[in-house]
Amino acid sequence: MSSVSEYAQKAKHASHIMAGLSSEKKNEALHSIASALEAACDDIILANEKDLLLAEQSGLSMPLQKRLLFDDKKLHIVASGIRSLISLPDPVGRFLLGNELDTGLELYRITCPIGVMGVIFESRPDALVQIASLCLKAGNAVLLKGGSEAAHTNKILAEIIDAATVSIGIPSGWISLLTSREDVSEMLKQDEYLDLIIPRGSNEFVQYIMQHTTIPVLGHADGVCHVYVNEYADMDMAIRISVDSKVQYVAVCNAAETLLIDESIASELLPVIARALEDRNVILHGCEKAQAIYKMLPVDKWHHEYLDYEMSVRVVDGLDEAIDHINRYGSGHTDTIVTERRDIAEEFMQMTDSGSVMWNCSTRFSDGYVYGFGAEVGISTSKIHARGPVGLEGLVTYKYKLFGNGQIMDDYASGRLHYTHKEIHPKE
Amino acid sequence: MSSVSEYAQKAKHASHIMAGLSSEKKNEALHSIASALEAACDDIILANEKDLLLAEQSGLSMPLQKRLLFDDKKLHIVASGIRSLISLPDPVGRFLLGNELDTGLELYRITCPIGVMGVIFESRPDALVQIASLCLKAGNAVLLKGGSEAAHTNKILAEIIDAATVSIGIPSGWISLLTSREDVSEMLKQDEYLDLIIPRGSNEFVQYIMQHTTIPVLGHADGVCHVYVNEYADMDMAIRISVDSKVQYVAVCNAAETLLIDESIASELLPVIARALEDRNVILHGCEKAQAIYKMLPVDKWHHEYLDYEMSVRVVDGLDEAIDHINRYGSGHTDTIVTERRDIAEEFMQMTDSGSVMWNCSTRFSDGYVYGFGAEVGISTSKIHARGPVGLEGLVTYKYKLFGNGQIMDDYASGRLHYTHKEIHPKE
Repeated sequence: MSSVSEYAQKAKHASHIMAGLSSEKKNEALHSIASALEAACDDIILANEKDLLLAEQSGLSMPLQKRLLFDDKKLHIVASGIRSLISLPDPVGRFLLGNELDTGLELYRITCPIGVMGVIFESRPDALVQIASLCLKAGNAVLLKGGSEAAHTNKILAEIIDAATVSIGIPSGWISLLTSREDVSEMLKQDEYLDLIIPRGSNEFVQYIMQHTTIPVLGHADGVCHVYVNEYADMDMAIRISVDSKVQYVAVCNAAETLLIDESIASELLPVIARALEDRNVILHGCEKAQAIYKMLPVDKWHHEYLDYEMSVRVVDGLDEAIDHINRYGSGHTDTIVTERRDIAEEFMQMTDSGSVMWNCSTRFSDGYVYGFGAEVGISTSKIHARGPVGLEGLVTYKYKLFGNGQIMDDYASGRLHYTHKEIHPKE
Repeated sequence: MSSVSEYAQKAKHASHIMAGLSSEKKNEALHSIASALEAACDDIILANEKDLLLAEQSGLSMPLQKRLLFDDKKLHIVASGIRSLISLPDPVGRFLLGNELDTGLELYRITCPIGVMGVIFESRPDALVQIASLCLKAGNAVLLKGGSEAAHTNKILAEIIDAATVSIGIPSGWISLLTSREDVSEMLKQDEYLDLIIPRGSNEFVQYIMQHTTIPVLGHADGVCHVYVNEYADMDMAIRISVDSKVQYVAVCNAAETLLIDESIASELLPVIARALEDRNVILHGCEKAQAIYKMLPVDKWHHEYLDYEMSVRVVDGLDEAIDHINRYGSGHTDTIVTERRDIAEEFMQMTDSGSVMWNCSTRFSDGYVYGFGAEVGISTSKIHARGPVGLEGLVTYKYKLFGNGQIMDDYASGRLHYTHKEIHPKE
């Protein structure tokens, strides 16, 4: 048996015990992690310096070296992140539905942990702490695989978290760190033990994971987000929202990549928006109609995530073509309409098949913290299980609990007894 | 391009239009289906007779021939099923969550259709009508593949449903019937267009589907359900629940396959339960301890779905071993405990990792109709998206709708504006 399979099996066993952990115990474990990390600050920084040195020697790019850094300041951010997680309500044990099937036969749908997560994350070692803490809060065991550049830092962080939690009664094996690419391939095969894979990284990487496992995957392949400027748009608002959606932070998945604009207003409005974007260093790529109105490069392909100061522009003949375009070329992530007409906005929001659909505001708002979830596990462009920004509740599922006092089916099948089906409301 | 890929693409296009259908329009279409089926009664029965004749000639078993039958009576059941579906609330457009992010910036989580379903079902042609109706009610397009024995019946049913719905404005292409195994293989590759596969059939078949597609699958591979008789069980109740869970209907997934019994009461209680089961023609297969108490066959393997008058029996040393056994050998479907101790029952229900966990009642109750969902799409042993008996809501997902009036991220990132995050309650 491979070691990954052993880790997975141990994690599964641990997860069954974790399903019974009280909120207090989980929060105590989170406190213990935060304190242990702070106490081990010097050792963590030493380990991180090894990674940084190797990164420098191997010629890793400066931005990647920067992501790798785990210093005093990062430690402080990470520890306060854990403490704010403690203050969030427990996602486990929530009442979702109650139904009295008959007198003395009560059905409840209650949230519970999913089980074992497999999380593959990028080079930032602080991501390890964040992910482990989120999984623990939701009562899940976790197999983690971080970037190899951060190997020393990840190792000490995982060891500290393991020791800090197991010592106060969290079952051993709930967290394991994988170290090689082969480990990841092995992990993708553990469908007997793993319940959900969460890959974080480039689009190609997430696509690769999705294609190579039968375990459900939570994630988004890419973010091709749209700003649609409708013929009834307020001009100033159209400019502000187009610019903010594109340039407020270009390297993120909820940044807009395509501007759609109605033909009837394009000759007037497109030059103004285009200049505002160019003033912020955005290079435009347009369809033929857009090019005829304003000088720009031809567009290469519509499903294109630049993640940079570039944007596609298409002139459409109205709402229907805009929706068709987004449903065909978008990625189901986030799309916004600018219009003064509520009826048009509502039709757009109903028919556009994306996790977040917006009216008169920036695509940049689609984010778990902005949405008020307190924590973000990721953004999902899948429609199954969790869609859009995913908070802690994306790490739980539910089970049905049926409380009886001796009922058997034969009494109901024979007609001696009848279901009553009365909704039960949650007790406050 | 294969015809299946064409169907899938058309279904995707149709699904985008269906996302905007009103409840009234969908119910009108369901009415139209019911009436059209009744009007075409003679033609349907003629087509069904062809299938029945071919089945007889090819030597299909009598139970399968019986499942194939679609007569007046079946038609009546099917039509009244559609009419009761009409009376259920629309699963689309439900308010799930509301959050005022700031004044004038309101977030809503609202249910919406999933998109395109691929449903593969067994030989009963009435299943085609039921599945198509459920998909329509939830606003989804569907590709259907039925048993080849029912080819003539399925063809006419699909044609009637197609004509009855498209004629009143449901978009053409929303329903397509696939006819061959090659079609199914093609369908499993359409991850660009299909959002969810629902396979209904044998365990091997569902497993095969799960292994051969990257599209999410809703279904259950098998139902290895347990009755655990705890040492504090009421004897009479233990007998009733064991017998009912096993024999009330042996051929279904929520029938119990394994009896677990505490060692401290086994010598007294096992013989009584065993005799009661044998009186109902159940053949028992026990562990060594069980065999020492009562004469029975040795057990072959614990993860075994008999779907017949057979049952495995294991003597366990208490609650923990019972839970371990179920989590290791069960299928996460339905498990019940018989005990007079509420604390023990609650621990069992918390720690047993199954879609339905029960106290003092029969496993046979885990069913969408019994649970009060009005309709059952299937039972899921997956933990993702939908778990346990799945009603209409398993056919919908949700999206976030953010209503603004010009907000941009830059104002919040720079600290000029702040999120307020006030919960919005649903308007009644």
